[in-house]
Amino acid sequence: MLKVDLNSDLGESFGNYTLGLDGEVLEYVSSANIACGWHAGDPLVMDKTIALAKEHGVAIGAHTGFPDLLGFGRRNMAITPYEAYTYTKYQLGAFYGFAKAHGLSIQHIKPHGAFYNMCAVDIALSREVCRAVHEFDPQIILLGLAGSQMIQAAQEAGMRAASEFFADRAYMDDGTLAPRRMDGSVIHDQSIALARIVKMIKTGMVTTITGKDIPLKCQSICVHGDNKNAVAFVNLIRQKLTEEGIAVAPLEEIV
Amino acid sequence: MLKVDLNSDLGESFGNYTLGLDGEVLEYVSSANIACGWHAGDPLVMDKTIALAKEHGVAIGAHTGFPDLLGFGRRNMAITPYEAYTYTKYQLGAFYGFAKAHGLSIQHIKPHGAFYNMCAVDIALSREVCRAVHEFDPQIILLGLAGSQMIQAAQEAGMRAASEFFADRAYMDDGTLAPRRMDGSVIHDQSIALARIVKMIKTGMVTTITGKDIPLKCQSICVHGDNKNAVAFVNLIRQKLTEEGIAVAPLEEIV
Amino acid sequence: MLKVDLNSDLGESFGNYTLGLDGEVLEYVSSANIACGWHAGDPLVMDKTIALAKEHGVAIGAHTGFPDLLGFGRRNMAITPYEAYTYTKYQLGAFYGFAKAHGLSIQHIKPHGAFYNMCAVDIALSREVCRAVHEFDPQIILLGLAGSQMIQAAQEAGMRAASEFFADRAYMDDGTLAPRRMDGSVIHDQSIALARIVKMIKTGMVTTITGKDIPLKCQSICVHGDNKNAVAFVNLIRQKLTEEGIAVAPLEEIV
Amino acid sequence: MLKVDLNSDLGESFGNYTLGLDGEVLEYVSSANIACGWHAGDPLVMDKTIALAKEHGVAIGAHTGFPDLLGFGRRNMAITPYEAYTYTKYQLGAFYGFAKAHGLSIQHIKPHGAFYNMCAVDIALSREVCRAVHEFDPQIILLGLAGSQMIQAAQEAGMRAASEFFADRAYMDDGTLAPRRMDGSVIHDQSIALARIVKMIKTGMVTTITGKDIPLKCQSICVHGDNKNAVAFVNLIRQKLTEEGIAVAPLEEIV
Repeated sequence: MLKVDLNSDLGESFGNYTLGLDGEVLEYVSSANIACGWHAGDPLVMDKTIALAKEHGVAIGAHTGFPDLLGFGRRNMAITPYEAYTYTKYQLGAFYGFAKAHGLSIQHIKPHGAFYNMCAVDIALSREVCRAVHEFDPQIILLGLAGSQMIQAAQEAGMRAASEFFADRAYMDDGTLAPRRMDGSVIHDQSIALARIVKMIKTGMVTTITGKDIPLKCQSICVHGDNKNAVAFVNLIRQKLTEEGIAVAPLEEIV
Repeated sequence: MLKVDLNSDLGESFGNYTLGLDGEVLEYVSSANIACGWHAGDPLVMDKTIALAKEHGVAIGAHTGFPDLLGFGRRNMAITPYEAYTYTKYQLGAFYGFAKAHGLSIQHIKPHGAFYNMCAVDIALSREVCRAVHEFDPQIILLGLAGSQMIQAAQEAGMRAASEFFADRAYMDDGTLAPRRMDGSVIHDQSIALARIVKMIKTGMVTTITGKDIPLKCQSICVHGDNKNAVAFVNLIRQKLTEEGIAVAPLEEIV
Repeated sequence: MLKVDLNSDLGESFGNYTLGLDGEVLEYVSSANIACGWHAGDPLVMDKTIALAKEHGVAIGAHTGFPDLLGFGRRNMAITPYEAYTYTKYQLGAFYGFAKAHGLSIQHIKPHGAFYNMCAVDIALSREVCRAVHEFDPQIILLGLAGSQMIQAAQEAGMRAASEFFADRAYMDDGTLAPRRMDGSVIHDQSIALARIVKMIKTGMVTTITGKDIPLKCQSICVHGDNKNAVAFVNLIRQKLTEEGIAVAPLEEIV
Repeated sequence: MLKVDLNSDLGESFGNYTLGLDGEVLEYVSSANIACGWHAGDPLVMDKTIALAKEHGVAIGAHTGFPDLLGFGRRNMAITPYEAYTYTKYQLGAFYGFAKAHGLSIQHIKPHGAFYNMCAVDIALSREVCRAVHEFDPQIILLGLAGSQMIQAAQEAGMRAASEFFADRAYMDDGTLAPRRMDGSVIHDQSIALARIVKMIKTGMVTTITGKDIPLKCQSICVHGDNKNAVAFVNLIRQKLTEEGIAVAPLEEIV
């Protein structure tokens, strides 16, 4: 049976600030990327979010970010590879403490926002991220952008890697995401997005922004739980997958 | 042979700021309390300090603090027991990541500054700190104030506990430290401080600020590495211990 | 004509986090306490909130807090009076920059949360807060707890002071707020709360938790804009005041 | 008589961390760039450093930085022009509060580190920085890199601008600084550095890394107070200037 993972960013609340409908989106996803207190999240939120994921039987991963709460980790910062190593080690360890307390193991890691984007194109950063993870636990899966330097670095390090698919984003002919400023880069029609997901899973192909079909093999689909509409769309995705005979399963059962 | 541990706070540098003569004081101590990035320290400093401790064969422990870099963790903050639990879990986990990378285990934990002082008199805080630690690894030793609620909570939790002796601080008749505002609370005469250390180790007694002898059994002596004079005094302590036939050994060989 | 001010805490969003229905509650209040980036708020939020207050013709004040974003400034911190002075000076100056850019003057200052509570009972802290404000601009009004050390310190400093009334909180016979843990300390019945407001304004008296009437003269009523219900209640308060022939006016027209 | 300003970065201590020999370098400089609590400095340090500058009769300026204490404001961050505006406004206002308390006016502003470097080549960032400053007080001088977009933006805004000379750095033929990775980019020979200063002031020319003489007119020389050697070199510079009949004067007497 065909399988795919659904991943979502969770545990992004901070102190008195609440963000995301974590309890609702956990009904639908199979893997939760949980913030580690740098770009979002805090120790109480981490503890509670991991408990909530456990209740829903959802696999957990560390969502590691830049030291930029003010910018929500979305601003590029010129960090060194060694900083990338230590920032990953620090956040992964902190995350591990809570996972262990709940009797869970860490399924995966996914850098967040600008950390993700910079790693995607920088093999030196990605290698240091992977070194930090692999040393910590070689079973942890790296979840990253298909065809990126992150996936390359994970494979070099002997780690399992998973690629994620963005259902609502157009792809270029070389397999990279179309820049947001480009016309047609964001796909607003949900039926088109759903069809793209099914095609990618069944055929390993995606139609690019120029209309060409290219190979793109992803094991996970990135979904959002920011608001009611986003959660409703995740529900739609699950229904569509069921109709198509595609099972939703956590990464560890796929890669 | 009589044994005692010498512990010191290390890894307190942060970013561009350097604090403490870590490389020098590591020549003399047997246990290093290493800051975990909240009240002091950062991921690079943690990584480097643990490497340095390993080079010197010094046992390592997590020095957990309040989220108050501006106040160096020295200001009381009205945190809840659950916050104490999660703050400890977070910092201990982060510390573990680096320790593991260097092939070291965590010998001990010692809350820092205001966290230490508040735990010393608050059994609810201390219990949550100990719960966080014991869940993580029941082998970790709690290093705290002799006769305090921290030691009490550690024993309740089934953890090993170690008490530390302050050579340069006067004690009250009930075994608590004389408040700094009290005349005679700080002992400036090094020969007196040295004599107190030897007496405490050999007889388990300390002479209080009123001149009375009371029982006080500590397994570790807290020393400082802030400046050249402090380091020179640590050297003196070691020499004195050697003369007196007392071995310096890490906590794990004592408690 | 009788007058009263309505004040509310605003500008508490931070980075990617949104908090409070600022645009809605600004329809009803006459004074906005705007966070200054320490316990809440950030430079973008400050700029936008001041612009929004100006649009609504609402007077603005600095809502100064502790350096504790994680705790939303609600946790007591053992700061020194000199720290209170510099923290106030820093935040007030930062606030002034934005106020000036929008052509507004600073009507008032109100410490937030734990800073407010600690100042209320600590004359040394309050004096340093008032010194920081008075040096900066002697026209700024201090908004604080009725009968507190803050009001005392402001009067000593030659500043104008305004007391605020908590419509939904019971008072003790000595004029202090009944602690939240006490039965009856929070008034849930809106009609009772409304009646208390009118009585306080018209007679300068409040009925305490023991049923006794005591004098309590406040120039401002503290209202909330956290959620739809809170905003609806502010609307109710305004309607009630209108019915009773009481005008809503900013502090500067009252004290 | 020929005049030049000597500027230095000061007030970079933070909480328990001390950085820089501020008291010593203030003996020699005419303008102090004082950190505003983002990349370095804190409210207590700001207050004390301004007091110290006043004692030495040294003019003060705001040294505004990125929200990156961990990276000391030296890492490029992809901030927007509007963020640059609000970050400048916030820090400048905070600085003003302390300056006013000491009866001083703000002579200048100089962005720090990565903020400086990014503004130097980005007119959009520079324009927003200058807008924030000019709105606040049109008398404030912008101190920036000679020939940079910062100087351009200040002139467009109708502000006074001053260019600074780096005595120990080689220049390219186009007047930009030679990148540090290039051989010969840092000038270690103090006598050569001194001769370059004198030549620049007297002739408005500098010899580039290729041996060519190009025009470079700077009103200020950037000096350092990090350590004893740096301070000794500042003393040497002053002696050399005196010998050459060049007066040291604050920016406001020059531009």
